[in-house]
Amino acid sequence: MKRLQAEIIAVGTELLLGQIANTNAQWISSQLADMGIDVYYHHTVGDNFKRLKQVINLAKERSNLIIVTGGLGPTEDDLTKEAAAAVLHKKLYEHQETLKEIETFFNKNQIPMTENNRKQAQVFEEAIIFPNHEGMAPGMFVETDETGWIFLPGVPREMKHLMLDHVIPFLHKQYKLQHHIASKVLRFIGIGESSLETKLSDLMKSQSNPTIAPLANEGEVTLRLTAKSDSKTECHHLISNLEEEVMKRVGKYCYGTDNDTIENTVFKLLKKNHYTISSAESLTGGKFIESLISLPGASSVVSGSIVSYGTDIKKDVLHVSQETIEQHGTVSEPCAREMALNIQQLMNTDVGISFTGNAGPDPSEGKPVGTVFIGLKIKGQPVEVKEYHFYGSREHIRSRTVKKGFELLYKKLK
Amino acid sequence: MKRLQAEIIAVGTELLLGQIANTNAQWISSQLADMGIDVYYHHTVGDNFKRLKQVINLAKERSNLIIVTGGLGPTEDDLTKEAAAAVLHKKLYEHQETLKEIETFFNKNQIPMTENNRKQAQVFEEAIIFPNHEGMAPGMFVETDETGWIFLPGVPREMKHLMLDHVIPFLHKQYKLQHHIASKVLRFIGIGESSLETKLSDLMKSQSNPTIAPLANEGEVTLRLTAKSDSKTECHHLISNLEEEVMKRVGKYCYGTDNDTIENTVFKLLKKNHYTISSAESLTGGKFIESLISLPGASSVVSGSIVSYGTDIKKDVLHVSQETIEQHGTVSEPCAREMALNIQQLMNTDVGISFTGNAGPDPSEGKPVGTVFIGLKIKGQPVEVKEYHFYGSREHIRSRTVKKGFELLYKKLK
Repeated sequence: MKRLQAEIIAVGTELLLGQIANTNAQWISSQLADMGIDVYYHHTVGDNFKRLKQVINLAKERSNLIIVTGGLGPTEDDLTKEAAAAVLHKKLYEHQETLKEIETFFNKNQIPMTENNRKQAQVFEEAIIFPNHEGMAPGMFVETDETGWIFLPGVPREMKHLMLDHVIPFLHKQYKLQHHIASKVLRFIGIGESSLETKLSDLMKSQSNPTIAPLANEGEVTLRLTAKSDSKTECHHLISNLEEEVMKRVGKYCYGTDNDTIENTVFKLLKKNHYTISSAESLTGGKFIESLISLPGASSVVSGSIVSYGTDIKKDVLHVSQETIEQHGTVSEPCAREMALNIQQLMNTDVGISFTGNAGPDPSEGKPVGTVFIGLKIKGQPVEVKEYHFYGSREHIRSRTVKKGFELLYKKLK
Repeated sequence: MKRLQAEIIAVGTELLLGQIANTNAQWISSQLADMGIDVYYHHTVGDNFKRLKQVINLAKERSNLIIVTGGLGPTEDDLTKEAAAAVLHKKLYEHQETLKEIETFFNKNQIPMTENNRKQAQVFEEAIIFPNHEGMAPGMFVETDETGWIFLPGVPREMKHLMLDHVIPFLHKQYKLQHHIASKVLRFIGIGESSLETKLSDLMKSQSNPTIAPLANEGEVTLRLTAKSDSKTECHHLISNLEEEVMKRVGKYCYGTDNDTIENTVFKLLKKNHYTISSAESLTGGKFIESLISLPGASSVVSGSIVSYGTDIKKDVLHVSQETIEQHGTVSEPCAREMALNIQQLMNTDVGISFTGNAGPDPSEGKPVGTVFIGLKIKGQPVEVKEYHFYGSREHIRSRTVKKGFELLYKKLK
């Protein structure tokens, strides 16, 4: 059999108006990826007969498994079946079983059934019908030459029900899918996307199975290793061989895999060490401690925080010395140092971390926007203070600062 | 001029694997809709030279305004410019200003710039360049015959910055946009979506221009009024007539419009009253104070916070009495009362607000998950404490608690 090249068509003017995101395409794609089916295109078109025909016609030419969602409803806007009928040369007829189900639905809900609802019982000749238990329009499979077409309603709940309960098992059978696909995400911090890639460029060039896909996001980089094979064991074997080579080169920056986050990795390290933590936060405003408290079970690790945004609070509540503030200002190495030391003592924790800096929009105390100091005190060790210069919006600078705090802690605790 | 028929192309294999949803297409579409530009297609393609060329070529044939996002980065996967150069017959050259900005970025961050980053400075001949202040790859506009092409990075933060700060004003000018659409969002708190809809149901049924669209989200409800017309004045006139009728019925729940948030509305009210604020937070973990500190200019209003997550911190740092904790526990009316009073005195602010409760996953001190107390002390007024019972996940309970705190403050201050 020819290799499957899938395409997902979403029909609906609301998508083109930006009223909703095309989450159907994402969800279906991830299901197909798990089955080892390659998706080459997503295409979105409005409820317009001419353009719908054009999009269906294009799919017919370039793909051999096409999943169409949306436009199966009862209204005059719903034109998917009519357009497909014209392009695929398939007649539509009224499917009696489906019609009965629709009538039963209206009777049960004691709503009069309007005539336009009969339209939902129209199906293609020779189609395999997938009954819809979450709504009215059924799903369908039809074939033209060597191409398979699946039609599904656009309501995500109905579409997912039909995919999981009917379409996925059907595709496995129909296409004798034996293909397995497995992927593993490696998560890195403290290294940029481009240096990571430079260190792995030969692997990335030579590898086609497993593939290596990098993705950078807010101070972190991930690598997704994806393997395809006829056996699940072989998939995992391929991945672990490649992972070993990757880790040899850049393993020291890797903090976790798959659904790990730097926040829960640090949380687990704190827990393992039986460490408690507190923070003194100025520009970050509580964002650091908040990310730990958001994790279930936080109370065994997190004591609390003093958010000392105002200078007075740094002096009066956090006891940063008058001298430090006068001589160095609040955005300074000595201030970060005292903040870390004082919070650790005040809250009697094993770890104290401090954040002070200028997130903008205006320079303060003569320090440019983006200047940040992070202090870290671990019981029995001297305080350490690092200076950073971040760029971008206020929000971005604050997020990067918090992330950098987690990075520092990770390096210390691992 | 020919009517604009827009198309949005998203480039990235991660989209076809279903790892992320194409939220860029949605966001851009809604922006274009607001400008009265029709979007006819969204098309998504992977990082594959042949298929990229095919998709770009198709857009060239059927659309006259094409926005391409993604694939402008430094890696070998990033092929958008190369594929477009081939289809549009435009040469690429190294843009010196952009290169300097990229070099500056690396110097400032004290990271060695790898050679592949030069690729991000490649731009099309005759292109208008939109500098990117949130990242490295700039945006671009080029023209072929009567078709306009816009290229933007795929990172949503960078794409939005370039759209809002450069592309939208540019399109208005370039295409002398005259079709007008105006919308206004009314924001409500303290009323549910269904009661709001019941009070407005006749208006919602009879109105087609302007339309009324309700949306509920995390304890708030919004109504979007949208009017279309050939004149801007007429649009605003239609909207203000409808707004007047809506406000007559439900105006007392309306806290703001458009981009207002309950957080910045409360912030402005605090500022207007020359009030300073501090918070004592347990289950919310700093989330309340963080939402205020995230606003530019926070320093004139926010003093700080004590995040007293551990019971010891409530006693030792926030000075809640031993007696209160022993007799009533930390999730109690008296504890919230003392927390609000103490933080206001300790930080010497006009307003002190406190949050204590159980966000789950397990009951604590015999109090069921979702039990929350919020204390509010305003200088010269007695402390008030309210009790709530929220449902849902840990994250949801914590967010609802913070939102409820802002609602209470809003009612007090307005």
